Amino acid sequence: MEYQHGGDIYTNHVKIDYSANINPLGVPKGVAEAICGAVADCDRYPDSQSASLRNKLSKFHGVSENTIVCGNGAADLIFQVVFTRKPKEALLIAPSFLEYEQALRAVSCHISYYDLKAEEGFLLNVENLISWIQESNIRFQMIFLCNPNNPTGFAITRERMEAFLEFCRTNRIFCVVDECFNEFLEEPKRYSILDSMSCLEWNHVFLLKAFTKIYAMAGIRLGYGICNDGKILEQIHSLRQPWSISSLAQAAGEAALSETEYVENTRKLMRKERDFMKGQLSSLGFHVFDSMANYIFFKDERPEALVQDKLLYHQMLSKQVLIRSCGNYRGLDGTYYRICIKQRAENEEFLTILKTILEKGE
Amino acid sequence: MEYQHGGDIYTNHVKIDYSANINPLGVPKGVAEAICGAVADCDRYPDSQSASLRNKLSKFHGVSENTIVCGNGAADLIFQVVFTRKPKEALLIAPSFLEYEQALRAVSCHISYYDLKAEEGFLLNVENLISWIQESNIRFQMIFLCNPNNPTGFAITRERMEAFLEFCRTNRIFCVVDECFNEFLEEPKRYSILDSMSCLEWNHVFLLKAFTKIYAMAGIRLGYGICNDGKILEQIHSLRQPWSISSLAQAAGEAALSETEYVENTRKLMRKERDFMKGQLSSLGFHVFDSMANYIFFKDERPEALVQDKLLYHQMLSKQVLIRSCGNYRGLDGTYYRICIKQRAENEEFLTILKTILEKGE
Repeated sequence: MEYQHGGDIYTNHVKIDYSANINPLGVPKGVAEAICGAVADCDRYPDSQSASLRNKLSKFHGVSENTIVCGNGAADLIFQVVFTRKPKEALLIAPSFLEYEQALRAVSCHISYYDLKAEEGFLLNVENLISWIQESNIRFQMIFLCNPNNPTGFAITRERMEAFLEFCRTNRIFCVVDECFNEFLEEPKRYSILDSMSCLEWNHVFLLKAFTKIYAMAGIRLGYGICNDGKILEQIHSLRQPWSISSLAQAAGEAALSETEYVENTRKLMRKERDFMKGQLSSLGFHVFDSMANYIFFKDERPEALVQDKLLYHQMLSKQVLIRSCGNYRGLDGTYYRICIKQRAENEEFLTILKTILEKGE
Repeated sequence: MEYQHGGDIYTNHVKIDYSANINPLGVPKGVAEAICGAVADCDRYPDSQSASLRNKLSKFHGVSENTIVCGNGAADLIFQVVFTRKPKEALLIAPSFLEYEQALRAVSCHISYYDLKAEEGFLLNVENLISWIQESNIRFQMIFLCNPNNPTGFAITRERMEAFLEFCRTNRIFCVVDECFNEFLEEPKRYSILDSMSCLEWNHVFLLKAFTKIYAMAGIRLGYGICNDGKILEQIHSLRQPWSISSLAQAAGEAALSETEYVENTRKLMRKERDFMKGQLSSLGFHVFDSMANYIFFKDERPEALVQDKLLYHQMLSKQVLIRSCGNYRGLDGTYYRICIKQRAENEEFLTILKTILEKGE
């Protein structure tokens, strides 16, 4: 098994990791304390129902706790929701998060791709997507939508997503909407279907959320899904062990939900640094796409960008800086990159290294 | 989803939990420290290959690290190994751990049961099992063997297990051998096939081990499997997310492997308290089966043992003591119980409550 994602600081020699889209403010203090406080009780099995955490999430989001299922990271739930539905035909947007494909392949699902176009800035036009599905004449059973999308960083407004999901409801297509990066957006609510979940009584939507990125909890493993169809949640429980979510993760999640100032600070930071980094990368000659999230998607347009030993990925790694090469995404090649956004001092250090490489050509 | 296992301290009002088979010495100090030390780095994704932990396990057990796969608790691996094999016909020993059945049902496998008999003390005779399989004329594809068995506590010697596994090899039956309670035995090596795994080059055996019970790490979630067939391990990775095992669990596991004194003390404690508790329960009139593990399996033979409001389970719970009713195991009814073994002071408190109930009849 090889690493296919960002964040591989284990097999590479890395000092600075810009490849994983994690909140640069680090594990919130309250979360760290909650974990250490929960250790002594780890001789007990975790609550298999995550009742206390689900109760807090229910209040946090204003949805019924019966519609919430927790998972060992959002990635865990991607596999589980696919295993419950066992679709034969699925549609993926390309490029998008790799695990959707992995999970669908695990149930031998046939996958079609709706390719976003470089010349359109990799933006998703929902009306075009609907026409494409209609013209394809394929009876899709499942679609994944990542909003904001990974690695491109664009987001679809709630209104447009609702229109698309209504189309899917009429056409009996089950939709997984992945909002794992929503909280990094300038206006999260404008791009979230969370409030639509309860008022529209959709049974065909699985809304995926995670603590991983916004609370910098990638190593702790905690994600959750919201779905109005109780049968699907029951099926998920029947397909997995009772104790998927560790006591430490449950305690961490409960603590994280109180970290409102941390999240506000994160958004302030992102607003400033996103513009800064986009501007800097553009002025260095990269083609920067219009990400709204906590990461930036760009293309290396140097003539030598695809020459193996001149790949920016290798050049940066030789300085112990890891960036996410997007060469293993469908429709992209090794000239496309994704980097996360960190705090100013780190970003400046990153840019200094990048500039040196561009100037020296190595 | 209802609780079907021991350890449900979340929906019951419990002060003393004798229903989960966890090491009563609690989370080892070194493990607790390792977890708190690992929290700050939880803004990174866990190592998806658990390379460092697998390396340590490899040295600890004297097996190649390429044969080791870690999981989010052993229960996680039970589902995953079943999902890779997707057996159509499986054989379970009854009674045994409930999750084998859950996992097999999740792939719609037909399950046959080899029923252990009360009059034989629920002991497993391997020769009889082999004859039974031969006479059944069923082409089993998978068998689970829990050694020592849960809830009964008997263990099969390595030689007998080897003989059985050789029979399975010849008959192309894939075997999952669950040794999650092995370390509590008086002579762990005598009852483990660990050393046979490397010398016999079995490809049809998946040996399941856990940190859960022996290191009192149930809330942390960490288990592992040892299997010589690399294809099966690859398939497991393809059927799940890359980050199944949290950074906290990986750090905890590495620290646990240094806890040799803790494990020795556990075994000393078990030797003493197992005999003590068996003797006490017998003298109180219970039929005590011959467990070799860290839990005791017994039958309530009072005439009123099955009267709903006289069930020992309810009587004990009314005193806020949780014991494991074995009524939901195949072949057992609500007169069978399993309790764990703890330290002397706790055991005496438990026995005092039990005696009061027996004397007063409530």
